[in-house]
Amino acid sequence: MDLTALFSLNYGLYVLATRDTDGKYVGCVVNAAMQITAEPPSMAVSSNSQNYTTGAVLRSGMFTLSVFSEQAALKTISTFGFRSSNDIDKFKAMPYIVTESGMPVLTREVCAYVECKVTGSEDIYTHKLIRGDIIDSRRLSKESPMTYNYYHKVVKGKTPKKAASYQNG
Amino acid sequence: MDLTALFSLNYGLYVLATRDTDGKYVGCVVNAAMQITAEPPSMAVSSNSQNYTTGAVLRSGMFTLSVFSEQAALKTISTFGFRSSNDIDKFKAMPYIVTESGMPVLTREVCAYVECKVTGSEDIYTHKLIRGDIIDSRRLSKESPMTYNYYHKVVKGKTPKKAASYQNG
Repeated sequence: MDLTALFSLNYGLYVLATRDTDGKYVGCVVNAAMQITAEPPSMAVSSNSQNYTTGAVLRSGMFTLSVFSEQAALKTISTFGFRSSNDIDKFKAMPYIVTESGMPVLTREVCAYVECKVTGSEDIYTHKLIRGDIIDSRRLSKESPMTYNYYHKVVKGKTPKKAASYQNG
Repeated sequence: MDLTALFSLNYGLYVLATRDTDGKYVGCVVNAAMQITAEPPSMAVSSNSQNYTTGAVLRSGMFTLSVFSEQAALKTISTFGFRSSNDIDKFKAMPYIVTESGMPVLTREVCAYVECKVTGSEDIYTHKLIRGDIIDSRRLSKESPMTYNYYHKVVKGKTPKKAASYQNG
């Protein structure tokens, strides 16, 4: 088995976010998200069970995915990716909008977003595989979306050990 | 809702394949596949419930994902993507290898593959969301993997209506 072969799978880079039941906006970086049906449009996202945001998404029953563009700076990604929403308010110093349903969407270096209503979730080892119906989606800029490969090769980004597809270095 | 915003999500292009219980090698093209955990490595793939291959994967309990490289020709992709394994033997005129578990892996214009043991599946509207433990993965070439965007923009490929993320044209 050559686990580096898994780097051939394509991913984007997203901020999974929600408004927790106490009103706090929380978010974390995920790369494993995909549409699973077109009609009706629905999605699945894999998020580490230990992430504060994962629990908040399941409590609120709603989430957004902000799609990082290739212009996304490592600093922005790091704010959402390598710290816990339990410790800091990640949205505090960031530009964001709030959807009609009250969910936060990061707008810095983000080219689109998707908003979902959670329809189910399942424990898969270390992660929750969360499914949702897409209730809204919008483009925010014409920039190209960041790919996970671009993040590693061009942005020289790292992957935290809690990621769905951990890449060492 | 601007459903074209969903085009910002990143995908690859894969042949989902298996050895059916009658011994026949079957496969279809999917774009929605992702790793969901790193330790142990596991995956999820979304495949249309009407696809012959989807039923075969659930019967056999095993599947492979052959990762198309950017060099993949429309003709190769079309063979697996726009016809049914119920009607033709898609592997007949194609180069492929068979894994130790007896599963077929397309090798033409493919840069890597992943082999999985099915651990569960769920009906999500038109599709089955199939989960599997990764039991093997290998690189087959150093070419870059095809992205779904590259397929649409450069290869000028179409998407069948049964895809997880249908793009009109």
